Amino acid sequence: MKAKVIITLKNGVLDPQGKAIEGALTSLGFSGVDNVRQGKFIELDVAAANADEAQATVEAMCEKLLSNTVIENYRVEVE
Amino acid sequence: MKAKVIITLKNGVLDPQGKAIEGALTSLGFSGVDNVRQGKFIELDVAAANADEAQATVEAMCEKLLSNTVIENYRVEVE
Repeated sequence: MKAKVIITLKNGVLDPQGKAIEGALTSLGFSGVDNVRQGKFIELDVAAANADEAQATVEAMCEKLLSNTVIENYRVEVE
Repeated sequence: MKAKVIITLKNGVLDPQGKAIEGALTSLGFSGVDNVRQGKFIELDVAAANADEAQATVEAMCEKLLSNTVIENYRVEVE
């Protein structure tokens, strides 16, 4: 079963990479760019009997490995 | 206007980071994990009169800076 995970920094956590992208876009001539935040996107296939089981498995993966829950949020979508 | 960009490696491009995640998940006891691919997720606010203009602006940003179109695909969603 295919799952997609989006991991983003929590609000209030500094994102220097996002700031760097914002600066680069502005210096390339893109105006009106603001609040750039960079996160991670992970796709994976997971063996599961149904979508609920796949969702639970991937959420466990996020808690244990994929995300740092102190500073990051994650969102799991199972297809 | 809020835009989300998902940048993924093209099929056939080696993804050592994805392989490392796959190995780590397996050694943590998650079985049946396969085809792990890691990409990037970028959120940003962009000044635009309407959604079409925002979409075009963010696609231009992807072509010029955000993605490496030789090895990466991008997908833009404007809200």
